[in-house]
Amino acid sequence: MTFSRLTIALDIMGGDNGPHVTLPAALKALQENPQLYFILCGDEKIISQFMSPQKSAIRDRIEIQHCSDHVAMDERPSSALRNKKDSSMRRALERVENGDADACVSAGNTGALLAIAYHVLKTLPGIDRPALVSALPTDDHHKLFLLDLGANVNCDSETLFQYAVMGSVLAEEVAGIENPRVALLNVGEEQIKGNDQVKFTAQLLQDAPGINYTGFVEGNDIFTNCADVVVTDGFVGNIALKACEGLATLVLEESKRVSQENWWTKLLAKIALPLLRKIYRRVNPDQYNGASLIGLRGIVVKSHGNASSDAFLFAIKEAEQEIQRQVPKKIKDKIESVLMERS
Amino acid sequence: MTFSRLTIALDIMGGDNGPHVTLPAALKALQENPQLYFILCGDEKIISQFMSPQKSAIRDRIEIQHCSDHVAMDERPSSALRNKKDSSMRRALERVENGDADACVSAGNTGALLAIAYHVLKTLPGIDRPALVSALPTDDHHKLFLLDLGANVNCDSETLFQYAVMGSVLAEEVAGIENPRVALLNVGEEQIKGNDQVKFTAQLLQDAPGINYTGFVEGNDIFTNCADVVVTDGFVGNIALKACEGLATLVLEESKRVSQENWWTKLLAKIALPLLRKIYRRVNPDQYNGASLIGLRGIVVKSHGNASSDAFLFAIKEAEQEIQRQVPKKIKDKIESVLMERS
Repeated sequence: MTFSRLTIALDIMGGDNGPHVTLPAALKALQENPQLYFILCGDEKIISQFMSPQKSAIRDRIEIQHCSDHVAMDERPSSALRNKKDSSMRRALERVENGDADACVSAGNTGALLAIAYHVLKTLPGIDRPALVSALPTDDHHKLFLLDLGANVNCDSETLFQYAVMGSVLAEEVAGIENPRVALLNVGEEQIKGNDQVKFTAQLLQDAPGINYTGFVEGNDIFTNCADVVVTDGFVGNIALKACEGLATLVLEESKRVSQENWWTKLLAKIALPLLRKIYRRVNPDQYNGASLIGLRGIVVKSHGNASSDAFLFAIKEAEQEIQRQVPKKIKDKIESVLMERS
Repeated sequence: MTFSRLTIALDIMGGDNGPHVTLPAALKALQENPQLYFILCGDEKIISQFMSPQKSAIRDRIEIQHCSDHVAMDERPSSALRNKKDSSMRRALERVENGDADACVSAGNTGALLAIAYHVLKTLPGIDRPALVSALPTDDHHKLFLLDLGANVNCDSETLFQYAVMGSVLAEEVAGIENPRVALLNVGEEQIKGNDQVKFTAQLLQDAPGINYTGFVEGNDIFTNCADVVVTDGFVGNIALKACEGLATLVLEESKRVSQENWWTKLLAKIALPLLRKIYRRVNPDQYNGASLIGLRGIVVKSHGNASSDAFLFAIKEAEQEIQRQVPKKIKDKIESVLMERS
């Protein structure tokens, strides 16, 4: 099934750079895909100013929803949920909930997006908690879906099991990987390794017929073609990914510092730094790819807070893909069939 | 207090390259420090062959303890503990336990070393579990001690609290940092963030007078000067550090691959790769630094399995430092005083 019309609600005000990044990305997306329609949530004046000079073929495919407020990047999720009823983020999610839009994309405050999306959209039947998932690049340019990246820091084995099912659907539908290999993140590959939670989840997955569970993988495996889906709880996933971000930053900073040592290293660095940056753009998943919030009754894609227009465009395309592939419905069907087979 | 004689028991057979790496490192350490004595545990023939051509000033400071066995790198810890009674690893630890040596250094199987050291040496009074700790380099070449790196994957808040005390002693004694800042690894810096375990540990640390607890830090902070000691459980610590190792490997591989694309990138890479490797040697803590197993009634330093002679020498020096500074005694004193103030 292909959709003749895709409607995405955009949180125009979200992210470190708000409209400066989101509006150019929206324009580019509209130019590239004639089936795309946007509901642009945010300050009407800013949006109009940017969009009114555009051709009517573009303007006809946007609706502006003025919002009097927005969620600050450092705002507490609980406060945003309680107080920001007319924020661009919340309105965009509401337009998904009431069926006007097929998906929502935001570069805003992750914690607030999680809290408001969970509140507004609710989880799918059979899913206790949503998860944040992103595709990491691996050594052979294969995609590896890692979840949860921080939606839930207290996960039990049942939640991890559901994450495995959701990740499996995403890998199959979005990346087109047939019968995706699902692994659990652990401190070793042997069955006896790990904490109680991960050991018990392994048992659940071994016994689940609809899932191609392949065992444990270690931290260093997540950048290799070890599996298509790697499951962990949000505490570990968040810290592991951020530690990688920290290392990437350190290496770039260190390269810059080394480059100042003498004329020779200055020359080396002039040559090496662009190469290094090129590689990092490829390996820094958080900056480059959108992260999807899955397990909800609607599609939500999160772009990085300091995303560039290109990265925000990438997140929009991710949302288009999830709409086309009807990801929430597929997750619902899969979890139903897995749970039925299990019982 | 300075020691006129330092005796270290070395597991000569441990590590991917065994005696080829450990013996040259031992020789260099003896040449550099005339106060150093070694008990070399391993295959007598191999050790003698290497050591007999040396000057008597060197030979007089070694004792060879022949061991008929060694622990394989992929051996199960439980099996090594049960079956490898005459292994070089176990004998080296026993020489610490019976007081012949002041410390043990091994590049062998980490799991087996943890299990055998715990069994042979036992923990200090007031300490439930030992921890594996390493110093990470940060953006301003400051040392940050991260623990636990995988000794215990099921840690409760009390264990994390003890880790904070032990890390604090190590930072003060080994790195000479006065009143070291101790932080907890978490998914956010705000007090409301995190799982139950980390929140409860924060409460314990806030109330502990002898510890300079500074709050939560995130994954990307561990390569910055955010704190002197960062505490987490062995599951998270192991996965975070290995994920960084995986990223480092990916970037190096990707640089090599990019370098094959055309003559220009080939040239760039020829220049960039050595710079990149130089930086990685500095930022790859696991490869470069030894990791200490602390909380035991004796000093145990673990060198990386595929350590070079230089890295193994570094681990020996780490052990020398811990002997000089009487780390186990200081940990014992500190935990006693903290627990007394707490009760």
